Amino acid sequence: MSDNNSNAAALIALDWGTSSLRAFLLAADGAVLEQRHRPWGISSLPEGGYPAAFLQIAADWPIRDVPLIASGMVGSRAGWKQIEYRALPADPSGLADALDSVLCPLPDGGEIAVRLVPGLLDPAGPDVMRGEETEAIGALDALGHPPGPLLLVMPGTHSKWLRVSGGVVEGFSTFMTGELFALLNTRSILASGAEPAPGTATDTVFAEAVREAAETGLAAALFRTRARMLTGALDPACTAAHLSGLLIGEELTAALRTVPQSHSSSRIVLVGDPALTARYRDAFAALGRKAPEHLQAAALRGLYRIAVSAGLAG
Amino acid sequence: MSDNNSNAAALIALDWGTSSLRAFLLAADGAVLEQRHRPWGISSLPEGGYPAAFLQIAADWPIRDVPLIASGMVGSRAGWKQIEYRALPADPSGLADALDSVLCPLPDGGEIAVRLVPGLLDPAGPDVMRGEETEAIGALDALGHPPGPLLLVMPGTHSKWLRVSGGVVEGFSTFMTGELFALLNTRSILASGAEPAPGTATDTVFAEAVREAAETGLAAALFRTRARMLTGALDPACTAAHLSGLLIGEELTAALRTVPQSHSSSRIVLVGDPALTARYRDAFAALGRKAPEHLQAAALRGLYRIAVSAGLAG
Repeated sequence: MSDNNSNAAALIALDWGTSSLRAFLLAADGAVLEQRHRPWGISSLPEGGYPAAFLQIAADWPIRDVPLIASGMVGSRAGWKQIEYRALPADPSGLADALDSVLCPLPDGGEIAVRLVPGLLDPAGPDVMRGEETEAIGALDALGHPPGPLLLVMPGTHSKWLRVSGGVVEGFSTFMTGELFALLNTRSILASGAEPAPGTATDTVFAEAVREAAETGLAAALFRTRARMLTGALDPACTAAHLSGLLIGEELTAALRTVPQSHSSSRIVLVGDPALTARYRDAFAALGRKAPEHLQAAALRGLYRIAVSAGLAG
Repeated sequence: MSDNNSNAAALIALDWGTSSLRAFLLAADGAVLEQRHRPWGISSLPEGGYPAAFLQIAADWPIRDVPLIASGMVGSRAGWKQIEYRALPADPSGLADALDSVLCPLPDGGEIAVRLVPGLLDPAGPDVMRGEETEAIGALDALGHPPGPLLLVMPGTHSKWLRVSGGVVEGFSTFMTGELFALLNTRSILASGAEPAPGTATDTVFAEAVREAAETGLAAALFRTRARMLTGALDPACTAAHLSGLLIGEELTAALRTVPQSHSSSRIVLVGDPALTARYRDAFAALGRKAPEHLQAAALRGLYRIAVSAGLAG
């Protein structure tokens, strides 16, 4: 792109999930001119709902003059407008073709369109995602569009394992690891409430639990946590690390066991929050497997890439 | 026993769990002369705590004149008195030897002893139970003390699978099936809150979910519930049946896969609430396995049998 527009606003991108809203003002080449973050996820909107949240976070940005694009739960049933899932296979151009718009009313009586990225449906599961498709596009872009088979692993409340070939998402599976951890660690008989003191050997406990889940299976291993707490074999301060190891161990084992032949020995890339991807790398290592590569969450890059495919930017 | 004492009170037995207290006044031959039920589990005691609960439920019974025996969570850390777990192997005489006493103060300043049955510890898991050991003794008595290997399956919040040979409990494993069901069905993203209308095909949904868990594993199958709800493939009113099927299917598969060779083809007996054991029988059938025998919960019979072994009754 030419120098004379490199600092001109060309796109507003919104990463709008369940618990937070991130907004980015981008130049035509994708450079971030300004970014803002508010706790206005779709479950915690300010008064005035979606339009108010958008108009406040984008205050003094040129919202009438540049395209607007958003991804995440904002397109769900409880979102600003429900956008149908797009069935696999999916790549940036497919997602760009499937953008839908919601109209945001303006104080002066006008309206502007916000393009929403659809979630993905894998009919084979069935399985669904909303938001991770955009992160996947961003991750593939960051990786330089590798042509070979690839597993993108996105740990989280609902961990996603995406099978990708030639830049196309061919299938995916979801594991409720983060949600199960939160339920078990706070609301079940395994909740201890104890925090580990500095220096507590939580890493060892975690690695052993990963192996126990792989060897025994989560169902048979879970209540042993309680038995070990009662018999003094597990420090209550290590319960969270133990549960985390059991659940991540189960996820890895199940995901690697059920992955189709096409991806059984493919490159694995972890995408997400560094602390969480580090945990997953530790879990791979505990199972004697090579620790996968890892990337930071890439929603912004994905939003930009889809906008370029849709002719909205670039 | 002789006719002249067949109606005389000879034992008071208490089945005292987390959420309820059942008290039985028994004759020397185990016949129930009277029984009472109060919602005074160890987590919901009346004012005055354990002594008040006991003295009220046993009001006008000859508490000074007959032995008193109790099993269940009343002997746990949060119970009337903590009774150490007894390590396996265990049979009625072993449990009788391990009875411990708590002294109940009387209004007149005196005291009476209540014998508490210890829970069991399987060091190999490790695993623990408290209350089910007494039910197991009762179930074995009801079955006529079969000499061969046996699996006793006690479905519930924490389902227990006991391996028994020659009347001795040799090992056991716990599955948190009921607790996981409650968490997932009420507090997770899979909670629908919808009740099935009469005639809804919940049995079919349940059986299919049992098979899905056996084939795919719970971890990979769980989130599909959500995807099916979102795509309309699963009636929200059937979500509970589906979750129940997934969890029971996982329990059966994991339990049967991890059972030691000694019990891999042994007789299986379900012990517990008829509605719940019926569900488990349906799950065995869904997997193409012979539906096991079933017995009603047998805590009272177990308490009596242990009391006889201890020389307190009979």
